[in-house]
Amino acid sequence: MARQPNILFIMADQLRADYLGCYGHPTIRTPNLDRLAADGTRFTRAYAQAPVCGGSRMSFYTGRYAYSHGAAYNNYPLRLDEWTIGDYLRPQGYRVALVGKTHMEADLAGFRRLGIDPGSGPGLLARECGFEPFERDDGLHPDQVVDPNLAYNRWLNGKGYPGANPWHDYANSVEGPDGEVLSGWYMRNSHLPARVAEAHSETAYMTDRAMEFITEAGETPWCLHLSYIKPHWPYVAPAPYHAMYGHNAIQPANRTAAEAEAANPVVRAFMAHEESLNFARDEVRERVIPAYMGLTTQLDDHLGRLFAFLQERGIDDNTIIVFTSDHGDYLGDHWLGEKDLFHEESVRIPLIVRDPRPRADGGRGRAADAFAEAIDLAPSFLDWAGGEARPERLEGRSLAPLLAGQAPSDWRDAVFSDSCFAQRPARITLGLDVADARAFMVRTERWKYVHFEKHPPLLHDLGNDPAEQHDLGRDPGHEAVRAEMRGLLFDWLRRRRLRTTIGDALIARKTGNAKERGYLFGVW
Amino acid sequence: MARQPNILFIMADQLRADYLGCYGHPTIRTPNLDRLAADGTRFTRAYAQAPVCGGSRMSFYTGRYAYSHGAAYNNYPLRLDEWTIGDYLRPQGYRVALVGKTHMEADLAGFRRLGIDPGSGPGLLARECGFEPFERDDGLHPDQVVDPNLAYNRWLNGKGYPGANPWHDYANSVEGPDGEVLSGWYMRNSHLPARVAEAHSETAYMTDRAMEFITEAGETPWCLHLSYIKPHWPYVAPAPYHAMYGHNAIQPANRTAAEAEAANPVVRAFMAHEESLNFARDEVRERVIPAYMGLTTQLDDHLGRLFAFLQERGIDDNTIIVFTSDHGDYLGDHWLGEKDLFHEESVRIPLIVRDPRPRADGGRGRAADAFAEAIDLAPSFLDWAGGEARPERLEGRSLAPLLAGQAPSDWRDAVFSDSCFAQRPARITLGLDVADARAFMVRTERWKYVHFEKHPPLLHDLGNDPAEQHDLGRDPGHEAVRAEMRGLLFDWLRRRRLRTTIGDALIARKTGNAKERGYLFGVW
Repeated sequence: MARQPNILFIMADQLRADYLGCYGHPTIRTPNLDRLAADGTRFTRAYAQAPVCGGSRMSFYTGRYAYSHGAAYNNYPLRLDEWTIGDYLRPQGYRVALVGKTHMEADLAGFRRLGIDPGSGPGLLARECGFEPFERDDGLHPDQVVDPNLAYNRWLNGKGYPGANPWHDYANSVEGPDGEVLSGWYMRNSHLPARVAEAHSETAYMTDRAMEFITEAGETPWCLHLSYIKPHWPYVAPAPYHAMYGHNAIQPANRTAAEAEAANPVVRAFMAHEESLNFARDEVRERVIPAYMGLTTQLDDHLGRLFAFLQERGIDDNTIIVFTSDHGDYLGDHWLGEKDLFHEESVRIPLIVRDPRPRADGGRGRAADAFAEAIDLAPSFLDWAGGEARPERLEGRSLAPLLAGQAPSDWRDAVFSDSCFAQRPARITLGLDVADARAFMVRTERWKYVHFEKHPPLLHDLGNDPAEQHDLGRDPGHEAVRAEMRGLLFDWLRRRRLRTTIGDALIARKTGNAKERGYLFGVW
Repeated sequence: MARQPNILFIMADQLRADYLGCYGHPTIRTPNLDRLAADGTRFTRAYAQAPVCGGSRMSFYTGRYAYSHGAAYNNYPLRLDEWTIGDYLRPQGYRVALVGKTHMEADLAGFRRLGIDPGSGPGLLARECGFEPFERDDGLHPDQVVDPNLAYNRWLNGKGYPGANPWHDYANSVEGPDGEVLSGWYMRNSHLPARVAEAHSETAYMTDRAMEFITEAGETPWCLHLSYIKPHWPYVAPAPYHAMYGHNAIQPANRTAAEAEAANPVVRAFMAHEESLNFARDEVRERVIPAYMGLTTQLDDHLGRLFAFLQERGIDDNTIIVFTSDHGDYLGDHWLGEKDLFHEESVRIPLIVRDPRPRADGGRGRAADAFAEAIDLAPSFLDWAGGEARPERLEGRSLAPLLAGQAPSDWRDAVFSDSCFAQRPARITLGLDVADARAFMVRTERWKYVHFEKHPPLLHDLGNDPAEQHDLGRDPGHEAVRAEMRGLLFDWLRRRRLRTTIGDALIARKTGNAKERGYLFGVW
């Protein structure tokens, strides 16, 4: 049997698909990811299952839609009995580890209820979303919540950056003209360099830690989730990346006055959020986007370093590299900031997969436009590791045939994403109960439809309006399309995998055999 | 503070609502349940959440739809982190115990994954569906699967009934004319008396065990789930109940030739099941139904004994009594046997609640026609125990206002039930994959609609066809009604409570307060 491949599962945070060179950005420099795409398969239509960190990541890790796993928003604890990547790969002999962010919130009440120690053994793995926490760092450490043992902070201390929270004071702060410390939380400071040396930045540190893990793992097949925090806010890049891109390198915002004028009430409420109002100002975009681009190029440079490391160690030909992001960032497009809604800028994600083995030669260098979903990764990993499919839990589908350049005739013709925005101020503006602050997206080849509970839907004709500037959600001429899209959502909801504890195969074996088991009901 | 009420939660198995005197059966004798109804509230439109033991019971115990908890059919293990009645009542100081059947299948793979010992402590409770197993007995013990330690069998041994499985050989077998032992599994034997003395039958034994529990519980508030196995098959009653009802006491079958002729393909496939073909014969109905009625009257007599016991102990004025069933039994109606589909004979259940306290005086003796669902019991129990509502998990609603004779203006106007029939032979006949052997029911005041995945729906006009003899599921004149019903199912599916680990109240408190927690995103 051939050796099982290692899986290097790299995630950027809040990185839009269209901010990579290989995805068509005209000015950004991402040569290493471009090379990865040239040597693998680049998915042009890959979607996050929730346009927010927590919900999206839990979908990546469980292989299940946000609706199904329930942890649809940040810090909604993941149910204890949701299986994650580690549950699928460990029985195949893999070491499954994390360096970086998961945004996993453990269901501590659930641990107490079942008498499980969340600090060791299976409890620790469940608490850490199935990953051995080689380095867990969710990357957002306000002074109020900073963990005194945060490894990155202690490491920075050792490098000569003092204080309880050098993550904030150095890695995510800058200096004003008079040497005063300015927090990177404020976007007005995004044009200045971070107070750490580049080699001490989060991106550099996490890359180093990944290499340490790979060295330590040795011959055991491994799956490493290398989960970078950047280019997520605080939008602060270390020199020289802070100044790598000028105003002329940024793209015009995708927004029109008519769009703001005619906005759906839910979108309008998001347009009134602080981040949206700020990103509506050119001044903000001109400060933040260069930093965002610089952070992305920095990430790419470190990936180059990491890819070279794999080569040097002679394991690049048996390591499948996956690069993706948890969701995008509006950056002022559609008069919005952040994410949470379902425009392409928010819900579409980069997805590049390089399987070095000959079986994937057919897809090498190709741009695949088949619909991919974040939930496809876990079943792909299981497939690569040689495990049996688990359709009673995994709602995605292995990407292996697409990587081989095949086009399975029964591949999906729609993608789905859903979101809970109950914690966002828009819920209050809209007067919604928590349970009503939900949205469901379906996109097909031509249409994107977003259902809201108490407000009219959104409908975009991606065929004629790829920039999504014209909402047909209330257009009388499109009721038939909307009905069809509601039908797709209805079909999708009925088919969620909530019977997780018994597989189809076992049920099929038991069909009609009650009598053999001794239960003679209905017999004369 | 007033003492918390005890809760006596009685369930019969496979007992149709219309087989009780107080529900209008013209010949059956159920004086004790009739008296309970006269002194409490009788729900005329109560529905099981799945027309099958396992799925229905898991809905009763979790307070959640079968779709939501996932254990939609018999022996589908319940997810480890589904909370059940015990999880809600124990923190309120209750002892929560079981005497009889739950049909709970534990997710042993889940236990192993989390390193939980399923034999003690919280593991034992999770394995037993949240109940302290004072007496666990699922009541179906073919020789192939009989537990050598089954308490009822060992007790029968002690009473002089020998062998490894006296449950079968005595309690559920009869004797032929030459003294030969005939198994009660065969319906042709249902007219003969069981080989046990009545006092040693399952119904008598479980009633005794309930009294032992109540005696032992003493002053601690308790919730006892007394869950009888009968009148579920094997349809065998002990003397004198086996001969209590003659052919003239049974009701004509609710079925027409036209109904069989025009049957929906799914219903037709069920009509071809062995139990359906047998119940289509008058000979079978005339042997089985008298036994079914006798078993029901026997149950009623033992409930009379139990209610008297509560009175004697002086606790009847602080014990809320709930009587229900997990689903019905076609008994040949609609050319069907067993259950699994959604005609009233199968999915409607008896539900009688007697709250002896003055607060329920307004509903005393009333027949409530508000829609009740099995999932309403768990939230009712929590309400009675004085606990806070848990809408993030509990999908039902406390019946307390209805018991008080109130009619809340926002009470539901539709009920839902869903079913997986993948293990029934009909799936094979219909050529369905396991995932497609699903059905979803919604009923409103006037209509009942059943959605199938790969076949036309059912539609019954209960206003004009309460016997459900005319299926309008393919009638061209009713497409608008069907569309409306599909819309109700779509709405219902979107609102399932799958975000179980965090409550609405906490989310509401966190809405818009990221900044206070130190996360300054979007700030200039």
